[in-house]
Amino acid sequence: MSDKKNKPADAVANIVSLAKRRGFVFQSSEIYGGLNGCWDYGPLGVELLRNIKEEWWKAMTFREDVEGIDASILMHPRVWEASGHVENFTDPMIDCKVCKARFRLDVLGDSISDKKKEKALNDLKFEIKDNSALLEKLENKLTNPGDEDPFNLILEDHDLGKLLLSKLNCPQCGNLNSFTDARKFNLMFKTFIGPVEDSSAVVYLRPETAQGIFVNFLNVQSSARQKLPFGIAQIGKAFRNEINTKNFLFRTREFEQMEMQFFVNPKNDKQWYDYWKAERLQWYKSLGMNPNKLRYHDHPANKLAHYAKEATDIEYEFPFGWGEIEGIHNRTDFDLSRHEEYSGKSLKYFDDETKEKYVPYIIETSAGASRGFMAFLIDAYYEEEVNGEMRSVLKFHPKLAPIKAAIFPLVNKDGMPEISREIEKDLRRNFKVFYDDKGAIGRRYRRQDEAGTPFCITVDTQTLEDRTVTVRDRDSMLQERVSIDQLSKYLNDKIIF
Amino acid sequence: MSDKKNKPADAVANIVSLAKRRGFVFQSSEIYGGLNGCWDYGPLGVELLRNIKEEWWKAMTFREDVEGIDASILMHPRVWEASGHVENFTDPMIDCKVCKARFRLDVLGDSISDKKKEKALNDLKFEIKDNSALLEKLENKLTNPGDEDPFNLILEDHDLGKLLLSKLNCPQCGNLNSFTDARKFNLMFKTFIGPVEDSSAVVYLRPETAQGIFVNFLNVQSSARQKLPFGIAQIGKAFRNEINTKNFLFRTREFEQMEMQFFVNPKNDKQWYDYWKAERLQWYKSLGMNPNKLRYHDHPANKLAHYAKEATDIEYEFPFGWGEIEGIHNRTDFDLSRHEEYSGKSLKYFDDETKEKYVPYIIETSAGASRGFMAFLIDAYYEEEVNGEMRSVLKFHPKLAPIKAAIFPLVNKDGMPEISREIEKDLRRNFKVFYDDKGAIGRRYRRQDEAGTPFCITVDTQTLEDRTVTVRDRDSMLQERVSIDQLSKYLNDKIIF
Repeated sequence: MSDKKNKPADAVANIVSLAKRRGFVFQSSEIYGGLNGCWDYGPLGVELLRNIKEEWWKAMTFREDVEGIDASILMHPRVWEASGHVENFTDPMIDCKVCKARFRLDVLGDSISDKKKEKALNDLKFEIKDNSALLEKLENKLTNPGDEDPFNLILEDHDLGKLLLSKLNCPQCGNLNSFTDARKFNLMFKTFIGPVEDSSAVVYLRPETAQGIFVNFLNVQSSARQKLPFGIAQIGKAFRNEINTKNFLFRTREFEQMEMQFFVNPKNDKQWYDYWKAERLQWYKSLGMNPNKLRYHDHPANKLAHYAKEATDIEYEFPFGWGEIEGIHNRTDFDLSRHEEYSGKSLKYFDDETKEKYVPYIIETSAGASRGFMAFLIDAYYEEEVNGEMRSVLKFHPKLAPIKAAIFPLVNKDGMPEISREIEKDLRRNFKVFYDDKGAIGRRYRRQDEAGTPFCITVDTQTLEDRTVTVRDRDSMLQERVSIDQLSKYLNDKIIF
Repeated sequence: MSDKKNKPADAVANIVSLAKRRGFVFQSSEIYGGLNGCWDYGPLGVELLRNIKEEWWKAMTFREDVEGIDASILMHPRVWEASGHVENFTDPMIDCKVCKARFRLDVLGDSISDKKKEKALNDLKFEIKDNSALLEKLENKLTNPGDEDPFNLILEDHDLGKLLLSKLNCPQCGNLNSFTDARKFNLMFKTFIGPVEDSSAVVYLRPETAQGIFVNFLNVQSSARQKLPFGIAQIGKAFRNEINTKNFLFRTREFEQMEMQFFVNPKNDKQWYDYWKAERLQWYKSLGMNPNKLRYHDHPANKLAHYAKEATDIEYEFPFGWGEIEGIHNRTDFDLSRHEEYSGKSLKYFDDETKEKYVPYIIETSAGASRGFMAFLIDAYYEEEVNGEMRSVLKFHPKLAPIKAAIFPLVNKDGMPEISREIEKDLRRNFKVFYDDKGAIGRRYRRQDEAGTPFCITVDTQTLEDRTVTVRDRDSMLQERVSIDQLSKYLNDKIIF
């Protein structure tokens, strides 16, 4: 990241601006004012995103014990009953009875000033001063809020929340005690399949790709003749009707996931959980992400999701703070057991060797492709002083770089364009390359630095004599002379290594 | 295809069955009875699909004059007003007033017996016997139906359709003359963004990827510093709420498109239309599709869509008949002009050299990835007699084959497994490979034939002496001895060629 000390908000704004200027990410439907929580990947962005997904896909499915699939976004509605999403995938919402504005209860505190919060808490304390049970609960939340705002925690509490709400003014119209009780708002996008819009035709846009894997467990296992332990990997879009989208690609309504579900004998769950936890952190490091900006956040036992026995987040330190880019979960036999119950089909596995029959446990690795994209983009961004001038450079790992090499004729004459085009044509068979013959060579280098292109190849006067070119390294800015015949191999070795 | 003469319905059923057995395609949410019109790609299927998309992406974006993007599925609702989809993307529907069943008017004839059709047409003729204008219209439709069922054509006619409907019995309850008038049913899936389900929150799942390209035209052009002519390519999911899904992957509710929109000076539209028309057919041939099963279907002028000046389909001969796998269209300035009108933003291009300012024309190449997948799968399928036994083989082009090579130790001893694992590890860095040490070698070959794996590598006794292996070609079934050191290069040359 830049050496300049940016405020987090500025830092995100800077990234959004670079992303747009260089064609990484545009606001969706921008000419119509945009669609909140949706983004479009531009020419460089789509290549970076594709490369991240490709590396993940190879890391996962170029192994004997993981199979890939691509399940549809629309699934049978019973899937989401079995998974618990219809009942539990909700945010608590309140309305103002006066102005009809709608708020998410669990983050309402974020839009209230500290002074007003303090006053409301004092009013609350006064009201419950004779109720020692409530007072104790309140003190407990104020002193042990964990990572969260204690005010929001209190709002979410069934008894305290109601009382505290009555002490607050609506952030929009200012009226006191004007809120409805909290209601559950389901985050799944709902639509109707077929011509009749009634309850029997409801389907949802999947809020996660994982369920497409669970319901295909036996189909994949038998068609691929796999034995446990083995995994199923999938990359695909998922959708959540978030009330509050924020932080660029971090919380969006449409996003892409890279999920792998690893099916194991329940006896070996801990071993495989630890294996995948280590493996997945290593993946980010192997693609050049700064290890100092990566950490685990293990979930304490009392904070685990209902299906999880153990869980950790891989977090990246974004300009706005640490944020999850992947979760690793021991989901036990929760998912397959629920699908057995709701579908009436057996999802048990028979182990030929031990003659055991059981519902497998699942170790899940759930990565956000869109979040990973943002982390890799931010992590690669540097502003450096070079010979008294600033250069912006994206130091992507060569495997992730959108363009692998740029080819420049030093001048547009003396046969240099012809040789450059020859090289371009040859390299293009294997790599995404870029040809540029416009402007001073220094400016051409800078443009490629900003696009994250690791190698710039220049055809110069010496080329005409000995068929060598200069290859300039993006990070060291050093140049090497390489024979044209050896270029393809040279780049291959540098990119694949 | 098989030499056996299958009925089309059987032929499709056979493909569905092979696709499931070998893990190419499963019914979506199968354990819940499936979700009509949605399919999941299994381990082999997802690789075939990825390879098709990868080849398309390279053919398109590994050129200087095409940029890639990945726009979101959810877009601003005004996009679909501008595009005409809100108003015109509809099917005509009728209801039975008695039993409430719902039918698509334009295919109602498909569920009525020939005898009943004949009777209804005779009744219709009798009723209009004194109306020479209607009689003439009727005769014209009966004698020049083009590719369509004349009965459906007559049903769709405003005047004749109403009369003919009144002569028909409901296919479900059997009542005569019980249908409502036809109404338009919009094929876009509708959902709501944000917590309030009202008209201001309506968004649609995109029914085509093209609009995501049009609205990003200027963002892409300026960030990539492109000059006309240039194109924008995109691969992504699209959704249509089809009333009648059919023919496996041919007409589904969720599908994937590979679309490229090429922006040109209106003066040069014909030249580029012809260029892309030729280029796209060649692409299928270059990936091994049987040229005798490919053809153009040019749209006659009176059948063109409202936005098109010229249009052709690339059709493949499926077991159920010729079907479109790609469309090439001269869309004129229709799309950009509409988006100018609806967004109030200028989408004109200023040509530096000629000093002209104009709304570009668009030449579109719109391929169905899911349809292409089915065509490549069917086209590759052969049943052949080999030494008195039948073998099923998928003769995929090596670039498309899900698995590039399989590695077999002849026996599981004498160091053969160790050498085989070494080879596997080495090849896996670049290729999707498969290791198999189970069963007779002949059976292992057959399994790979059915998966479409072009090369089988066997480690045998001679390997122990001279470090060579046999490489068996899937199609010729001939074996060659290759040195282990040369294997990677050998395969690379055969696959990339």
